[in-house]
Amino acid sequence: MSKKYVYFFGEFAPNDGSIRDLLGGKGAGLTEMTKAGMPVPQGFTITTEACNKYYDDNKKITPNIIEQIYQNVDKLEKISNKRFGDAKNPLLVSVRSGAKFSMPGMMDTVLNLGINDEVCEGLAKLTSNERFAYDSYRRFIQMYADVVESLGKDSFEKILEEQKIKKGAKNDTELTASDLKEIVELYKKKYFELKGESFPVDPKEQLLAAVTAVFRSWNNPRAIYYRKMNDISHDIGTAVNVQMMVFGNMGNDSGTGVAFSRNPANGEDHIYGEFLMNAQGEDVVAGIRTPLDIEELKKINPKVYDEFCKTAKILERFYKNMQDMEFTIEKGKLYMLQTRNGKRTAQAALKVACDLYDEGLINEKEAVLLVEPSQLDSLLHPTFDTKALKAAKPIGNALPASPGAASGHVVFTAEDAVIWSKDKKPVILVRVETSPEDIEGMYYAKGILTARGGMTSHAAVVARGIGTCCVAGCTALTINEKEKFFMLNGSKVKEGDIISLDGSTGNIYVGQIPTVNATISGNFGRVMAWADEIRSLKVRANADTPKDAKTAVGFGAQGIGLTRTEHMFFEETRIEAVREMIVSKTKEQRVKALEKILPMQRADFEGIYEEMKELPVTIRYLDPPLHEFLPTEEKDIKEIAKILNITTEELKDVIVKLHEFNPMMGHRGCRLAVSFPEIAEMQTRAVIEAAINVSRRHKDWKITPEIMIPLVGELKELKFVKDIVVKTADEIISKSDIKLEYSVGTMIEIPRAALLADDIAKEAEFFSFGTNDLTQMTFGFSRDDAGKFLDSYYDNKIYQNDPFAKIDQVGVGKLVEMATILGRKTKPNLKVGVCGEHGGDPSSVEFFHKVGLTYVSCSPYRVPVARLAAAHAQIKYPRKIK
Amino acid sequence: MSKKYVYFFGEFAPNDGSIRDLLGGKGAGLTEMTKAGMPVPQGFTITTEACNKYYDDNKKITPNIIEQIYQNVDKLEKISNKRFGDAKNPLLVSVRSGAKFSMPGMMDTVLNLGINDEVCEGLAKLTSNERFAYDSYRRFIQMYADVVESLGKDSFEKILEEQKIKKGAKNDTELTASDLKEIVELYKKKYFELKGESFPVDPKEQLLAAVTAVFRSWNNPRAIYYRKMNDISHDIGTAVNVQMMVFGNMGNDSGTGVAFSRNPANGEDHIYGEFLMNAQGEDVVAGIRTPLDIEELKKINPKVYDEFCKTAKILERFYKNMQDMEFTIEKGKLYMLQTRNGKRTAQAALKVACDLYDEGLINEKEAVLLVEPSQLDSLLHPTFDTKALKAAKPIGNALPASPGAASGHVVFTAEDAVIWSKDKKPVILVRVETSPEDIEGMYYAKGILTARGGMTSHAAVVARGIGTCCVAGCTALTINEKEKFFMLNGSKVKEGDIISLDGSTGNIYVGQIPTVNATISGNFGRVMAWADEIRSLKVRANADTPKDAKTAVGFGAQGIGLTRTEHMFFEETRIEAVREMIVSKTKEQRVKALEKILPMQRADFEGIYEEMKELPVTIRYLDPPLHEFLPTEEKDIKEIAKILNITTEELKDVIVKLHEFNPMMGHRGCRLAVSFPEIAEMQTRAVIEAAINVSRRHKDWKITPEIMIPLVGELKELKFVKDIVVKTADEIISKSDIKLEYSVGTMIEIPRAALLADDIAKEAEFFSFGTNDLTQMTFGFSRDDAGKFLDSYYDNKIYQNDPFAKIDQVGVGKLVEMATILGRKTKPNLKVGVCGEHGGDPSSVEFFHKVGLTYVSCSPYRVPVARLAAAHAQIKYPRKIK
Repeated sequence: MSKKYVYFFGEFAPNDGSIRDLLGGKGAGLTEMTKAGMPVPQGFTITTEACNKYYDDNKKITPNIIEQIYQNVDKLEKISNKRFGDAKNPLLVSVRSGAKFSMPGMMDTVLNLGINDEVCEGLAKLTSNERFAYDSYRRFIQMYADVVESLGKDSFEKILEEQKIKKGAKNDTELTASDLKEIVELYKKKYFELKGESFPVDPKEQLLAAVTAVFRSWNNPRAIYYRKMNDISHDIGTAVNVQMMVFGNMGNDSGTGVAFSRNPANGEDHIYGEFLMNAQGEDVVAGIRTPLDIEELKKINPKVYDEFCKTAKILERFYKNMQDMEFTIEKGKLYMLQTRNGKRTAQAALKVACDLYDEGLINEKEAVLLVEPSQLDSLLHPTFDTKALKAAKPIGNALPASPGAASGHVVFTAEDAVIWSKDKKPVILVRVETSPEDIEGMYYAKGILTARGGMTSHAAVVARGIGTCCVAGCTALTINEKEKFFMLNGSKVKEGDIISLDGSTGNIYVGQIPTVNATISGNFGRVMAWADEIRSLKVRANADTPKDAKTAVGFGAQGIGLTRTEHMFFEETRIEAVREMIVSKTKEQRVKALEKILPMQRADFEGIYEEMKELPVTIRYLDPPLHEFLPTEEKDIKEIAKILNITTEELKDVIVKLHEFNPMMGHRGCRLAVSFPEIAEMQTRAVIEAAINVSRRHKDWKITPEIMIPLVGELKELKFVKDIVVKTADEIISKSDIKLEYSVGTMIEIPRAALLADDIAKEAEFFSFGTNDLTQMTFGFSRDDAGKFLDSYYDNKIYQNDPFAKIDQVGVGKLVEMATILGRKTKPNLKVGVCGEHGGDPSSVEFFHKVGLTYVSCSPYRVPVARLAAAHAQIKYPRKIK
Repeated sequence: MSKKYVYFFGEFAPNDGSIRDLLGGKGAGLTEMTKAGMPVPQGFTITTEACNKYYDDNKKITPNIIEQIYQNVDKLEKISNKRFGDAKNPLLVSVRSGAKFSMPGMMDTVLNLGINDEVCEGLAKLTSNERFAYDSYRRFIQMYADVVESLGKDSFEKILEEQKIKKGAKNDTELTASDLKEIVELYKKKYFELKGESFPVDPKEQLLAAVTAVFRSWNNPRAIYYRKMNDISHDIGTAVNVQMMVFGNMGNDSGTGVAFSRNPANGEDHIYGEFLMNAQGEDVVAGIRTPLDIEELKKINPKVYDEFCKTAKILERFYKNMQDMEFTIEKGKLYMLQTRNGKRTAQAALKVACDLYDEGLINEKEAVLLVEPSQLDSLLHPTFDTKALKAAKPIGNALPASPGAASGHVVFTAEDAVIWSKDKKPVILVRVETSPEDIEGMYYAKGILTARGGMTSHAAVVARGIGTCCVAGCTALTINEKEKFFMLNGSKVKEGDIISLDGSTGNIYVGQIPTVNATISGNFGRVMAWADEIRSLKVRANADTPKDAKTAVGFGAQGIGLTRTEHMFFEETRIEAVREMIVSKTKEQRVKALEKILPMQRADFEGIYEEMKELPVTIRYLDPPLHEFLPTEEKDIKEIAKILNITTEELKDVIVKLHEFNPMMGHRGCRLAVSFPEIAEMQTRAVIEAAINVSRRHKDWKITPEIMIPLVGELKELKFVKDIVVKTADEIISKSDIKLEYSVGTMIEIPRAALLADDIAKEAEFFSFGTNDLTQMTFGFSRDDAGKFLDSYYDNKIYQNDPFAKIDQVGVGKLVEMATILGRKTKPNLKVGVCGEHGGDPSSVEFFHKVGLTYVSCSPYRVPVARLAAAHAQIKYPRKIK
C-alpha cells in the first residue's frame, strides 16, 4: 500500500505516528475535536510529509497524492451530501495551512473555494440569499487571485472601494447583491487582464492550485523570518486543511470570531475574545469593521455563547491548557474551526499554570511545562507602559541585547555617564562599542546603545550580567563623539537629549516613555518551587561583585559558577596598580605592584563569600590580555605615563609590545600565569586569605573556594599553574588556624582541551565549559566580528541561530559531550559545569542537561529562566545524575 | 626477581627489550663491541630506567639499584683482577652518560674515578710512573669537584695555570710528577675550602656520587635546550656507563682520539679524525694542545693505525652505517671506548648511502633511511663560504626562519626593495614585520629580516615558499623607518649599508660574506629515486605562480596542493581593481570591478596549467579578509581614494567598517563568497576558462581543476558556495567545445569542519587540511601572537615543539585523524591531503602517512624533504593506501 498522505478529520489513529508532526496543529485540533463530537465542519488534512515531498519532487504534487486528495473529496461529498461544482447543492471548502508550531498569519489561506458562475447562481437559489452568494464569490476571486496567482490585493481592493464610493456604501455589508454581482464581473475582468487567462471554473483545479499555494507559502519570506525568530526548523513543512465551508456571512444570524478560554494577558479564568456578525474570518483580522467583545455575543445569542463557553471548557480539559479558538456561526448554529494552545504573557502563563493545578486538571510537572522559560525574562525587568508605547514611533531598531526598558539623557562616554548619574540625571550611554574601560559608566547607565557588536558583544554580555537594558549593533547609527551628537535614520540626537530604549524589541525612541515595574505574583514562586523540586541540573550564577552575588542568591542561584577577577581590576582605584604591574620591567617591580592589588582582591572575595555563605564560589583567574588595561588615546597615554612615573615613550613602547593581531587568541588566560607566576600567586593569596578571614568570622560555615584556571589547552600547562596555586595555598593554610579545603579546576574553552579532556582531568578537580570561547574557536569566528557576515548566513539558511546565543549542539556540543565523557573516564564523579552565555538559554540548558552536566551558570537575571528550563529538560529527558 | 637495572657489557640479551632504549647509544655500542670481541675495557651500564626511577623517587637512587651497581663492581673487579681502593692493584673507572640519542657534550662525565692518596701512591709504584699517577689524580679531583659537586672549573684551572707559570711550563705535559703532586695538594685544599669537607676517599662513595651527577645532568639547561632543538623527548632519561679506565696519559706510547670511518663532510671512504699522544679524552676536546690528524698515527704507530682502520670497517659492516669512534692507546695497545653512527652533512649522507649500497652492504630502503629528510634543505639553498664565515662576527641572532644565505643593501620598505633591485642592487629587506602588501618587495629581496613574528609568521612562510633566506623575530632590533636606520645590540646600520643573513643559523652580520651554491651530486638523484619508489604518500607543492609551479615540478612535486589566489590580487597592476571591488556599494559596481580582475586571474591559471601539464592543480578561492587589501597609512589612504575616485572620508569609512578585532577569525574564506557570491563566480570563470583555453592548445592533455573552498565550517555553507561554482562552471563548459571535468572540495581548517567531516564529505569531493589555521584554532592561539608567550612554555617544558612547525599529533592530529575517518565513512575513496606548513616537516609527514592521508603539499623547496620523509614513513609504518 502506498504511503498515506491525506487523513479525513477523525481518521488519524494513535499508532499512525505523532499527530502534530503529521497533521500540524490545526489539523490535529480539528481531528481531536471531531473525535470529541464537537461541531466541526468536516474535511481532511494533507500531511506535512506531503509538503516535504512537494519540495523534494521539485515543487510538484505527485499523482499519488492528488489521487488521495480526490478520494477524500469524494468522501467529503458523501458525508456532506454536497458536490464540488454541483450548482444544485455545491460543496465549498476552505484551504488552510497548519504547521506543527503555530505561525499565525505567516502562511496562506483560501476560503470559499469551489465557486464559479453556475455554482454562485445555485448557491443564491439554495440559500435564497443572492447577496451572500455573490459576497462569497467576490471574496473567493479576490483571495484566489492574491494567494494562488500572486496577482496582489490592491487592484481588487481598488475595485471594491470604487464600487463602495459609487454606491455610497460605508461598510461592505451595505453593498447589495447586485452591487456585488457587478464587482464579481469586474473582478473576473481584472483577473483576465492580470493573468492572461480566465478565472478557473473547475473546483478540483482550484483546489489543487490552492493546496500548492499553501505548500509554497511555507517558504515565503515572512514565514522564514518567523521561523528564524521563533527557532522553528525550516524542514518540518506545513500540513493543509481542506474543510467544508460554513458561512459567517449568511446574514445577521451568522458571524465569526476568535476567543481564548482565559485572558491571555493576565490569565484570568474568563472567555476573552472578539467577533463580527455577518462576516467571514478575514474581516475580523482585516480591521475594516471593528469587532465586538465576546461578551456582546451573550446578548446577541446567549445560547451560542453558552455553547461556546462550554466547548471551551471541554477543550481546556482535553488539552489541559488554555485554548485559542476560532468559530463561525451559520444561521444561529455554532461551528468550531480551530483550537490550539493559546499564546499568553508570562504573568498569564504563571496564573494559568497555578489555576489549572488548583483545579486538579494538571500535576506539578504539567504546570511547570505550561510556562516557557524564556518568558520569565520579561518579569524581571521594568517594561514600558503599553499604552504610551503604542503612541510612540521608534526612530530605529537594532538587536534586543539585554531586556528591560529605559529612558535617559544621551551621553557619549563612560566618564560622562558617571558624572551625569552622580548629578542625579539618568543616562543612556551611546557608544560605537563598549570596552572593559567603560565598565563603571555602564554600571551607572540606565541603558546602553551601541553601533557595533552582536548579542554577545561586550556591551550585551555586561548589560545582561548587570540587568541593564541594552540595544546593540545598531549599524544605522553614526556617532560624532567629538561634537557630541548621533544620527539615526535622519534623526539627530544631541548629548543631553532624552531617548528611550526597549531592550525586548530593540526599538529606539526619542523622548521619555514611562515604565512600569512588572509585579511578580505569588504564582511565580509556586512554579519555581515546583521546578526546583523536579530538576536535576544545578543552576549557578556568574557574579563578579558582592552586589551581583546578592542578586544571584535572590534569584535562587545555587552558587557562583564564574567570578571574573579582572572585572575588579578595572575599577578606578585599582587600575593604577594593575598598570604599574604591567609596565614592570622586573619580577620584583611586578610583585611590588601586585602587593598593592592583593588587599583589594581579598576584600572583594570576602564580600562575595559573605553573600554566598556556604554556597560554592568558582573564581576564575586573570583572563584578558594585559593590553586591555592600558590606554589607547594619546592624551590618556600621556597622563597615565605621568602617574606611572615613566616616560610617554616607555608607556607607548609597552603598548606596542603588547599589541596583538588577534587578541582573542593571544597572551591571555593561564598563559599570563605561565609567563608571570606571581600573578597566580597573588590571586591565590587573595582567594585563600579571604576564605580564611570569613571562616574565622563565621565558625560554622564551611567555605570551599573553587579556583578555576582559564584557557587551558594542555595538561602540563594546567599542572604548572596548579602547582603554583597549591604551593601558595597550602603554605597559607598550614600557617593559619583554619582547616580550609579548596579545589582547582579548569575551564574547557579551547578545542584542544576538549579533545584531550581525559588527560586534563588528571589534574583538574572540576571542568567548566567556557562555551563563548569554545564556540568562537570551534566555528573559527570571533563574536565581535561575526555580526558582519552572519546575517547573510541566516538569509541563506546556512545557520538558523546565533551560535553564541544557542549552543551549536552538533559541533560545539559534540566537543562538550566528548569532553564530559573523556573527563569522567578519568574521574567518574567529575563536576562539570558551563559558565558561558549559553547557561541562560533554555534550549542550551536542555542540551547540557542531556549530556549530563552538573550545573549551568548564567547571569543572575537569567537564573530563574535556567531553573525552569532545567525542570523542563528533566521532565522531557529524565536522568538520574543529580 | 627484582627488575634488572644494571647490565654488564655484553650481558644484554636480545629479548631484554630494546637495547638502545635501555642502555643508551654508548652502552649499546660497548655491549655490541664486546660481543664482537673487540678490545673494549670492561664495565657495565646502568639503564635509562634507573635514571627515570631516580627522578620518580625524588632524585634518590634506591637501595636495590645501588646493590645491583655494587654487584657489577664486584664482577668488574674479578674480571679485571683489580680492586676498588686497593693500593696494590687499584681499579679506576670512567663514569659516562649515554642517552638513546647522541647528545654530544651536553651531559657529564667523570674520569679516573677510584683514586685517593693511597691509590695514587700505589698507582705510581705499579706503573713506575709517578707523573701519570698524579696527573690522573689531579684530573679526577678537578672533574669531580666540577661535575659532582658543582664547585666550578675556574678555581682549579687557576691553580693549574699558576703552577704552570711558576714552573715555566707551556704545556701540561711539561709539568713534572712533583709539580703535579703539589697541584693535587692545592686542589684538595681548594676543595675543602669550597665544599666545607674533605675530598671523599671511598671509591664506592665517589662512584655513587658520580652516577647521581650523571643522572642529574640529564636535566641541566643545555641538555634540555639540546633536546628541544633536536626534538628528543624529555622523558627517556640517560643511561650511565661505568668502565674500567685505560690510560692515554701513560706516556708517549699512549694516546687517545676520535675518528669517523668516512669523511663526515663529503662522505669519502677514508678514516677521518684526530688524536693526541700522552693525553686523556678531555684534552682532545679542550683545545689546549692541537690534536693531530689521524693520518699522523700511521707514522707514529702503523700497527695500531691498521688495527683501528680494520675495526672501523668491521663496525661499519656491523652497523651498516658510517661510525664515529673513540679510542685510547695504552702503552701501545688499542682500546675502543665508543662507537656510534656518525653525524654527517647532507652531501656526505647521500654519498655514504650510495657507496654502502654499491658496496652491497645495504639495500635501497636502508640507503634511504641513511639520509635525514630535514638535511636535504641545506642542499637546496646557497650557503656562506665556510672560511669567510669563520672570520665574521655576527652582530645579532634571531630565528632561522628560511634557509639560505644572502648579502645585500639594507632597505626598509617593500617599495625600495623593488626600486633598488631593479637598479641591480641586491637588497635585504628589513621590516618590523611583513604584510601581504610587501609581497612584491619580498620577491625582489635577497633576504628578509624582521623584528617580530615566529617561524610561521608571514615573513617566514612567504620566504620559505619562495626560497628566500629569512631571519625573523629579532626582538633586539629597533627600526627607525623614518630616518632609515636600525639599531641592533649597539650596532647602527643605515639604509644602503650591506648586511648578510644566514637563514640556517639566524645570524646577522655587517658587511658582505661570499656565498657558494651547493652542488647537488648524482647521489641525490639516486636516493630520491629510491624514495619515490618506496613511498605511498604523494607529495604536492604549494605554488601561487607559474614560476613557483615550475620550481615545484623541478623538485619532483606530483601536483599543486594549494594555489592561493589572493596572492595574485596584491600585485601592483591588479590591486587597484581589487580595491575598486572592495569599496563598491552595489553588486553591480562589484561585478564591474571583478570583470577587470577576471582576465588577469585567468591568465595566471593558464600559466600554471601550462607548467603543470596534466598534474593536478588545487586552487583555493579568495581567503584573506578584505581589509588586508586596503591601505593603513594616512598618505596612502589619500592617494588611493583619489585613484578610486572616492573621498578620503568614504575610503576611511570603508576601512573602519572592515576593521576586525580578530581578523584571523573574521570575514574571510568562504564567508566572503557567501556575502559576495559574485567573487566566487568570477574565480570560477577564471579557473574554468583557463582550463578550457589550455585544453584547446594541448588537445592530448586532460586537465582537471580542483576547486577548493576555504574556511568551511558547515555543510550548508559549502553547498551554498559549491552551488555557485557548479552553476557557473557547468554553464561555461556546456557552451564550450571541451569536455572539461573538475572537482570541488574543501579545506578542513576549522575545528567544526573536522568534527562534522562526515557531513561535510557529502558535498566535498576532496579534503585538504589547512593545518596552520586548524592548529591556531585548536590551540586557541594566533601564530602571530604566540611568539610572545611560547618561550615560557618551552622553558617550563609545557610544550616541546612549535606546533606550527611540527603537527601536534595528540590534539590537532586527533582532529585530523577523526576527520579523515569520518570523511571516508561518507566517501570511502575520499582524497585527503594537507596543505599547511606542516606538509614539509618530516615528523609531521610521518604522522600524515600513518593516519592514511593521500598527499601532503608543501612549499616547492621542501618537496624533496617531504618525498624522503614519506619514504621513511612507509619503511617504518608500511601501509597499502597509495
